[in-house]
Amino acid sequence: MSLDELVAALPPDTVLTDPDLRAAYRFDWARDPDAGLPQAVVRANTTADVQTVLRWASRYGVPVVPRGAGSSLSGGSSGVADGITLSTERMRGIDIDTATRVAVVQPGALNAEVKKAATAEGLWYPPDPSSFEICSIGGNAATNAGGLCCVKYGVTTDYVLGMQVVLADGTAVRLGGPRLKDVAGLSLTKLFVGSEGTLGVITELILRLLPAPPPAATLVANLPSMQAAADAVVAITAQLRPAMLELMDNGSINAVEDMVSMGLDRDAGALLLARSDAPAAAAQAEIAQIRAACEAAGATDVFATDDPDEGEAFAAARRAAFPAMEQFGTLLLEDVGVPVPALPALVAGIERIGAAHDTRVVLVAHAGDGNTHPIIAYDPRDAAAEQRARSAFGEVMDLALSLGGTITGEHGVGRLKAPWLGAQLGDDVMALTRRIKDALDPQGILNPGVVLPIAGETPVAPVP
Amino acid sequence: MSLDELVAALPPDTVLTDPDLRAAYRFDWARDPDAGLPQAVVRANTTADVQTVLRWASRYGVPVVPRGAGSSLSGGSSGVADGITLSTERMRGIDIDTATRVAVVQPGALNAEVKKAATAEGLWYPPDPSSFEICSIGGNAATNAGGLCCVKYGVTTDYVLGMQVVLADGTAVRLGGPRLKDVAGLSLTKLFVGSEGTLGVITELILRLLPAPPPAATLVANLPSMQAAADAVVAITAQLRPAMLELMDNGSINAVEDMVSMGLDRDAGALLLARSDAPAAAAQAEIAQIRAACEAAGATDVFATDDPDEGEAFAAARRAAFPAMEQFGTLLLEDVGVPVPALPALVAGIERIGAAHDTRVVLVAHAGDGNTHPIIAYDPRDAAAEQRARSAFGEVMDLALSLGGTITGEHGVGRLKAPWLGAQLGDDVMALTRRIKDALDPQGILNPGVVLPIAGETPVAPVP
Repeated sequence: MSLDELVAALPPDTVLTDPDLRAAYRFDWARDPDAGLPQAVVRANTTADVQTVLRWASRYGVPVVPRGAGSSLSGGSSGVADGITLSTERMRGIDIDTATRVAVVQPGALNAEVKKAATAEGLWYPPDPSSFEICSIGGNAATNAGGLCCVKYGVTTDYVLGMQVVLADGTAVRLGGPRLKDVAGLSLTKLFVGSEGTLGVITELILRLLPAPPPAATLVANLPSMQAAADAVVAITAQLRPAMLELMDNGSINAVEDMVSMGLDRDAGALLLARSDAPAAAAQAEIAQIRAACEAAGATDVFATDDPDEGEAFAAARRAAFPAMEQFGTLLLEDVGVPVPALPALVAGIERIGAAHDTRVVLVAHAGDGNTHPIIAYDPRDAAAEQRARSAFGEVMDLALSLGGTITGEHGVGRLKAPWLGAQLGDDVMALTRRIKDALDPQGILNPGVVLPIAGETPVAPVP
Repeated sequence: MSLDELVAALPPDTVLTDPDLRAAYRFDWARDPDAGLPQAVVRANTTADVQTVLRWASRYGVPVVPRGAGSSLSGGSSGVADGITLSTERMRGIDIDTATRVAVVQPGALNAEVKKAATAEGLWYPPDPSSFEICSIGGNAATNAGGLCCVKYGVTTDYVLGMQVVLADGTAVRLGGPRLKDVAGLSLTKLFVGSEGTLGVITELILRLLPAPPPAATLVANLPSMQAAADAVVAITAQLRPAMLELMDNGSINAVEDMVSMGLDRDAGALLLARSDAPAAAAQAEIAQIRAACEAAGATDVFATDDPDEGEAFAAARRAAFPAMEQFGTLLLEDVGVPVPALPALVAGIERIGAAHDTRVVLVAHAGDGNTHPIIAYDPRDAAAEQRARSAFGEVMDLALSLGGTITGEHGVGRLKAPWLGAQLGDDVMALTRRIKDALDPQGILNPGVVLPIAGETPVAPVP
């Protein structure tokens, strides 16, 4: 195996081998302590470069970690020791076809850049992870990323009409195309979306665009308890489809208020944030329905606005929960989901887990689809506190599973959650997953350790 | 291999062996002349029955054809000589969970039965194939069926949150669950949706339900040409999301008018049928936008109504195109799709193909998503006419592919279109498909000849 051979086969200035430069690609936002230092980083310029890397890696059995913007919260793009990290950061083309209403994009383009290019043509790319300003569209497709508008507009897979993907052996294939309905053959496009770089490397995406929605009206309600908030969520979603339905618990309200001082009620048991983007006067009618549902559930204070900037300020406050919690230490960000009626039990259980481990845990949630983000904070200088926090992290997943939920709603399994996947899927589905992985990547070179354990190794949860 | 062994392993009255009874399961709606007579028909009562059949079939290498209501238009459920046809017609349970807003259904339930059960709880299951009154929900999932509302509400895969599926070796696995966002593991649920019974047999589905939509307003526009209609479609879909956007050409208008005499304009070059289900007054605003786009494209006559029954009469007229064409002989129903801007070229090409083969071809289309149904009619007593019709059938697919389209938008590949699949996907994607098929069904017992050619056989298009 010769790295020189790979360097020679790629254009100049494509491969980073300097240790200091490689080090920047070791971690992603999950800060997985077990991340390894790659032997080289390839910043691919083209699909052909990606093919070159995979042909070389196949020949020598070298692990390849595909990486977009490195904003994974589950360690899906963290480095593997002696592997190649294959970055798509240079592949950022965006082409909008207004007649067919699709965007043809390269994987390194940021979600925000795709949104902006669509907006410039009067169109809209809906999926909106909270990290949309810094996450790549290729990473969004690899993880089937969600966001705040999913409750009405769906997740990334609903917008991926086609792709070009390079398989483990370097073969580049085109799947799907700019067609809204296409059932010719197996649903391979859908299989690659959410495969977290374990089946191939996406080098182009064809994304469905929608007409721009009307300006949204926003409602903020204080509720006395998480149970009351969950009741309101069930009542709202039974009647209409809000364009956003977010939830903050008392702890996250206080953390955000500490940071932004926007007058959130520090005594509220829960804050519900809803949007309607129904056209014209219909938005007011929907906001009235949402208000009625909140009041019926016991809301103590309800505020509504049709000023988009004012509404966006509340959405920004909700998105700020993660940075706001950094005042309490290093964070572990959870992503568990449950059926909506189980939200109160999840929240009560999380409180118990936090208390049992003497660890601060607060919660924000995409409540309309039952996807929650418990945020666990610990003092990084206190090894015992870190251990307790990691125990809580695992127990929150166990709790979600006991409520019929999922260990990850939108961030992906990555490396951090791989030890828990079997508990959710069961042995037979894990075996089925392995059969597909082995069929497409028989050497196991693609993002090893992500989703599935490395072949032959037994996954071990990092904490007892 | 002993059929008696299978009969003994199943509950009484589950297996049909009488030739007259088996004969009813030889054909589906595609009337594939090459369909074979199954050696037995198993009308499974439970998932356990399906497991029994697949364990037995795996042991002896017997082909198994899964069958719902037998309404496939592409031969996806037509019989295989000496195979087992595994019917789900007895598995019809429907359970609605109003709090989680999901339906848990067995595969033999009809689409219309699922819709009705949801409606009874104030909820809505959107996918609406034209055959919704007679097609099964399991078949809908197996083919990723579409319908008229897809242009706004998506196709079957967008509503399948989870399933139970029995694999080729008889293992039953549960995939997904009642969670709107769940990225734990590969997107296996999505892979099985649209796999046409070639990877497993679905025995239960968990379906997402929406709140019931407001009553719809309907607009009907006569346009001078298909080009004008396509212009209107592009203009409309750039501005808003109609809940239906259907198109009929002059030939289909006249065929329907022959049958129903509802005053359709026999001279119109095209008829466009649009719906808005935006809430309250917003629907009128959307209808006004659609009207303006039609008039800008040259519409000669536009009629709008907010009477749901009147609107439904037009939708029923559109759905009647298929039976209305039966006056002209036996039908071959196409399902090709193209990007919306290519619709006029597709229609012009279809006219050329019809003329070249002296064959009547008319067209209806789910125009908003570029999915079209050219309908080819021929005299079944005239062998030469049938041959010309089958030539036209193949050439329409070739044409769609040349326009960047698909051979099937919503009916599936089945057995009838399998010879054309390679031309659309290419050798590398066919090989990728084969790797997944072989990984999940190594003996090739599941619906052989559907999607992929039978291993070792070369697919031959039925006409030169």
